[in-house]
Amino acid sequence: MSAVAPALAQERTAKPQPVSIAEQGSFFVGGHEVHSDTLSSTATRKPSGTVTVDQVYVHYQIPSTVTGLPITLIHGCCLTGKTWETTPDGRMGWDDYFVRHGHGVYVIDQASRGRSASDPSAINAVKVGKAAADQLPSISFTSHEEAWQVFRFGPEYPKVFAGLQFPLEAQTELWKQMVPDWVEALPTPNPTVPALSGLAQRLNGTILMSHSQSGIYPFQTAAMSTSGIAAIVAIEPAACPTANADMKPYVGIPILVLFGDFVDQSPRWKPRLQMCQEFSAATNKAGGHTQVVLLPDVGFHGNSHMLMQDKNSLEVAAWLLSWMEKNVRRN
Amino acid sequence: MSAVAPALAQERTAKPQPVSIAEQGSFFVGGHEVHSDTLSSTATRKPSGTVTVDQVYVHYQIPSTVTGLPITLIHGCCLTGKTWETTPDGRMGWDDYFVRHGHGVYVIDQASRGRSASDPSAINAVKVGKAAADQLPSISFTSHEEAWQVFRFGPEYPKVFAGLQFPLEAQTELWKQMVPDWVEALPTPNPTVPALSGLAQRLNGTILMSHSQSGIYPFQTAAMSTSGIAAIVAIEPAACPTANADMKPYVGIPILVLFGDFVDQSPRWKPRLQMCQEFSAATNKAGGHTQVVLLPDVGFHGNSHMLMQDKNSLEVAAWLLSWMEKNVRRN
Repeated sequence: MSAVAPALAQERTAKPQPVSIAEQGSFFVGGHEVHSDTLSSTATRKPSGTVTVDQVYVHYQIPSTVTGLPITLIHGCCLTGKTWETTPDGRMGWDDYFVRHGHGVYVIDQASRGRSASDPSAINAVKVGKAAADQLPSISFTSHEEAWQVFRFGPEYPKVFAGLQFPLEAQTELWKQMVPDWVEALPTPNPTVPALSGLAQRLNGTILMSHSQSGIYPFQTAAMSTSGIAAIVAIEPAACPTANADMKPYVGIPILVLFGDFVDQSPRWKPRLQMCQEFSAATNKAGGHTQVVLLPDVGFHGNSHMLMQDKNSLEVAAWLLSWMEKNVRRN
Repeated sequence: MSAVAPALAQERTAKPQPVSIAEQGSFFVGGHEVHSDTLSSTATRKPSGTVTVDQVYVHYQIPSTVTGLPITLIHGCCLTGKTWETTPDGRMGWDDYFVRHGHGVYVIDQASRGRSASDPSAINAVKVGKAAADQLPSISFTSHEEAWQVFRFGPEYPKVFAGLQFPLEAQTELWKQMVPDWVEALPTPNPTVPALSGLAQRLNGTILMSHSQSGIYPFQTAAMSTSGIAAIVAIEPAACPTANADMKPYVGIPILVLFGDFVDQSPRWKPRLQMCQEFSAATNKAGGHTQVVLLPDVGFHGNSHMLMQDKNSLEVAAWLLSWMEKNVRRN
């Protein structure tokens, strides 16, 4: 019995050893009740009542032998917590890898994404004639062609960067991971941010590992409260705080900003890297401990924006573990 | 470190022993590519391109010691695969329980729900003026008050059935599980059905365990192909096939329809139970092996519609294991 598509089975690395899990499950952080009169536009469900919104789903596993701090994995744009699980070509995800290396792992779905509910009331309000069409929420579904460039598989669809590590032969499995993104319809900060703060305080010390769109969230969380934040690892963040921001929330937290390859060939990512380098300089000038690392500078070549799914993803994860070992103080 | 809300910690049963997992991860079944010109209504994302829709997310765990067939858990209305995970009051979910009892467990998110993408193109078409408001998809978000009655916590909100097993003290955690339901905007059969058929064939023998809205899906799957369906366990199905349906797909499959308590006091569920009893009689007359069981008749009292989350949920799960042991032939 194979749990992955037969066509992908050959791509798998050797079958891993069994892993012993002390505790696993899921729960929500955040969320609040709201009343709505447009919960439905049809007779099958009642339109008026109370619903809960802005909660964030968290799936977790704690290994039997814990040797490091819990890691919270925060996916990016147009994706869900699936980002960190089995790769498109059927290899072990970072969630499983970090558990197998002694870390509790907490995988979230951002607010209004995946298993974290969105609120369709504004859509139903328009459908039943209570609001105008321009009041519809902005919901974007990123196309394969656009994602190709954002994910830095090549300069533009369908060109490929030489030496790219992403398993493009399994790209159809990546496209299945993509979901509509309500982020533009949500307040600032995203409700994910206070939920992350609640999670960090509950865990009493966790490494917040973001990706892409969510890159700014751990910094916004730290600006709310540094309580429970043991470190920030920003994988290819869409933004860092500006260099003239108040550095006080950041100076006491070990921070790593990690980028893959081909960044200088990307008009989208080059300025974002520069923004993070300026932030890094500012925090360190203020007494902080921020590092910006490009994977080619530490021996890894060909990594895309989706580096947790690249062919060398577990080697990159091992490098991250060694960074944590050196830089993150355990409670 | 506690992974559940402190207020709920006292409700937990004794901490379980570690569980050894041979393999775990996630993948998708089904899905196909479509072109859209209304993927976005804003300048931040391009409106035209290719996206993948109708795929079904599957999270799985295979224990180190397998003693039974894989179980596929299919959630119901307004919910996601979270249904089967940690209960609202922080006790072990059926997913974990079945794994600990020797079954591979596959938890899905229905098409257009949770980590399985919905397509917002019709919403954006209205927002940008390409379609009229009545073309908006029907998306329902079930209120707490309505769910109260559907989930049979009492005859109507906020009345409670005497002896109810649902942990109402943790109801706020249940409400956080609820998500918008696109089912009325989807074709018949629901794209989840062919995806389940693909999953069953890949697993080469699985017990399809449905709940509520998804109750009819395993039957529709069997009508497409019985290949890979080792048994059907319908937990409180919203519908069974009609008694005058072609019984051929069902006679070779062990089928259990399981209902909780208070059914005769529910105008919603009483006729659905009756429909399943008529279906059961028809399959058995045709040579099939269908049982309809009400939990009070086998010694469990007070169960709600959400019986996988009731206080006696693990006792009910143990009863299900013994039913499988007696009635399901292993490959």
